[in-house]
Amino acid sequence: MIKTAIIGTGLIGQAWAIVFARAGCQTILWDGNYQAAQKALELIALQLEDLQQNGLVSEPAAILQNIRVVQHLDEALEDAEYVQENLPENRDVKRAIYKEMDALAPPGTILASSTSSIPASEFTQDLNGRHRCLVAHPVNPPYLIPAVEICGAPWTSEQTIAKTRQIMNQVKQKPVVIHKELEGFILNRLQGALLREAYRLVELGYVSVEDLDVTIKDGLGLRWAFMGPFETIDLNAPNGIKEYSERYGPLFQSISKEQTSTESWSESLITKLENSRREQLPNEQLLQRRLWRDKQLMALLKHKQKQSL
Amino acid sequence: MIKTAIIGTGLIGQAWAIVFARAGCQTILWDGNYQAAQKALELIALQLEDLQQNGLVSEPAAILQNIRVVQHLDEALEDAEYVQENLPENRDVKRAIYKEMDALAPPGTILASSTSSIPASEFTQDLNGRHRCLVAHPVNPPYLIPAVEICGAPWTSEQTIAKTRQIMNQVKQKPVVIHKELEGFILNRLQGALLREAYRLVELGYVSVEDLDVTIKDGLGLRWAFMGPFETIDLNAPNGIKEYSERYGPLFQSISKEQTSTESWSESLITKLENSRREQLPNEQLLQRRLWRDKQLMALLKHKQKQSL
Repeated sequence: MIKTAIIGTGLIGQAWAIVFARAGCQTILWDGNYQAAQKALELIALQLEDLQQNGLVSEPAAILQNIRVVQHLDEALEDAEYVQENLPENRDVKRAIYKEMDALAPPGTILASSTSSIPASEFTQDLNGRHRCLVAHPVNPPYLIPAVEICGAPWTSEQTIAKTRQIMNQVKQKPVVIHKELEGFILNRLQGALLREAYRLVELGYVSVEDLDVTIKDGLGLRWAFMGPFETIDLNAPNGIKEYSERYGPLFQSISKEQTSTESWSESLITKLENSRREQLPNEQLLQRRLWRDKQLMALLKHKQKQSL
Repeated sequence: MIKTAIIGTGLIGQAWAIVFARAGCQTILWDGNYQAAQKALELIALQLEDLQQNGLVSEPAAILQNIRVVQHLDEALEDAEYVQENLPENRDVKRAIYKEMDALAPPGTILASSTSSIPASEFTQDLNGRHRCLVAHPVNPPYLIPAVEICGAPWTSEQTIAKTRQIMNQVKQKPVVIHKELEGFILNRLQGALLREAYRLVELGYVSVEDLDVTIKDGLGLRWAFMGPFETIDLNAPNGIKEYSERYGPLFQSISKEQTSTESWSESLITKLENSRREQLPNEQLLQRRLWRDKQLMALLKHKQKQSL
C-alpha cells in the first residue's frame, strides 16, 4: 500500500486520514499547528469507534496504528507517494504551501488538494513540479461518501491523473476524472442545476419545500442511490438512452425554456425556505439531525456493501 | 379501507392495483379489453410472488383476494370511492373515458388520472363533476417508488386534493401536492434540470458518461435516497438553509449563467451517450439489468423500512 501524507488536519483532513489508514496505507498527519494535529488523532480515534459501532470497520486500533503525527513538513513529505492537502480555501495559503511542498517532496510524489473552489492552475503555475499537482475534491465525509472529483491544471500530466485515479480506487473511493478545469466541478454543477429549479418552483408557489423533498427522497433518489442519472434513463426506455433521449428530449427542452434564470436568490425566497425548514426542524435540532444523517449514511453504505453496489 | 377502481390494466394499472390491494383496499379492475384485464390479474399474481420472495409482502394470496375483474365500466364504478385511470397518453382517449366515468360514478367519487403529460384541465373542462377530477401521477412502479404527484385543474376542489392526499397516505404512498398546473410536474422538472446539465458536461468533454454517474450514485444520491435536496443543504451549513443559501448562492448563480441553453440535444450527442452506455451495457443485457434494478429497488425499500425512513 502506498504511503500518504495529510497536510492540514481539520475535519476534511481527519476524514481523509480515515480513508487512507482504513485501506492499510501508512498515513502521516501534519498541521501548521502541531497541537491541532495531535488533537486530530484523538478525534480520528473517536470517529473510528463510531464507525466500528455501526459495523463499518472491524479493527479501529489497527487502523489507528497506520496513522502518525509529525512536527515538521519535511518529515511528512520525505517518504510520501501521495499527499492530500486540506488547508483553508484561500489562494495565497494554497500558493504558499504548494511552493513549500513542491520543494520538499520527492519528485514522483503526487500533490493533491481538497479544494472545492480554487482551480489547481491558480496555485501551481510557477512550480517546477506543477505537472504532479492537481485537485482531488472529496464529498464530506469521504469515508462515508466515496465520490472524489479529480481535476488537473492544463499542465498536470496524464500520468498524475491516471495514478491518482488508481490510488483512489485502491483506497475504495470512487474517482471522477474531469478533463478541463471547471467552476464547481461536476457534482456541484449537477446539484446547482437541480437546486436552482427547486428554489424557483417554491418561489412561484407550485409546491411546498417539504413536498419537493418527497419527489427526490421517495422518488428519483431511490434510483440515484445506486445508479447515476444516465444509467437511470438508459433503463427507462425499452431500447436504452437513445430512445429515451428522442422520446423525452422535447419535454426537457420545452421545460428548459423556463429554467434560464440567472438571478440571485432573493432574500424573501431564502426567508421562505428558512421558515419552512425551521417549522420542520427547529434550530436547536439541527445538530441532532446531522448525527441522524450520518447514522443513515453509514447504514446505507453498509446496505450497499451487502448488495455489492 | 376505501374501495378503488383501476381503469386500464396495463403495466401502470397493474402496479396501482398492487398498491391498493396491498393496503387492504377492495380493488376492481376494468379494461376496455376484458381479456386484457383477466390477463392483468395473472401478471399481478406473478409480481406479488416476486415481492414476497424479496420480503416486501407476506401474504400474496390474501392481497390477490382484494382484487376483482369486472366486465363493464358501470360495475367498476358503482361502489368506488377512488378511481385511478391509466389509459393511453392521448387527449381524446382521456376526454372520452372521463365523460363516461363522470356520468357513471357516484357524485363523491374521486376520478384521478395517471397521466404524466396531459393536464387535467385538458380533459375535464366540460364535465359536471370536473371538481372531483385531477391527476395523480405515479413513478413507475408505484409499489416500489412511493412518490405520487397530485395536480388538479383550476376547478378541482380543495376537498378533492385533500382527500386524494389522505388516500395516498393511507395506502403508504408519498403524496406531493402541486398547486398550479405545470408542464412535467415537479419530479421531471428536477430530473430535466439535472439531465440538461449532465448532457451538456458530456457534450463539452468535461467528463465521461460513466464518471458523471459516479458523482450521483456514489455522491449526492446517497443523501438524496433519504433526504430531499432542501433537507440535504439545510444540514450542510452550521445554521441551516439560510446560511447555506448565502454561502453557496453566488457559486450556483455564477454556474447558472452557463446553464441557460434551450437547444435540443444534437444527434451526435445522443449517439455519443448511446455508444458510451452500450459499451458499459450491451443491448442484449438491458432487460436483465432492468430486473437487477428492480431487485435493488426492492432491497433499498426494505432497507428504508427497517430504518424507518
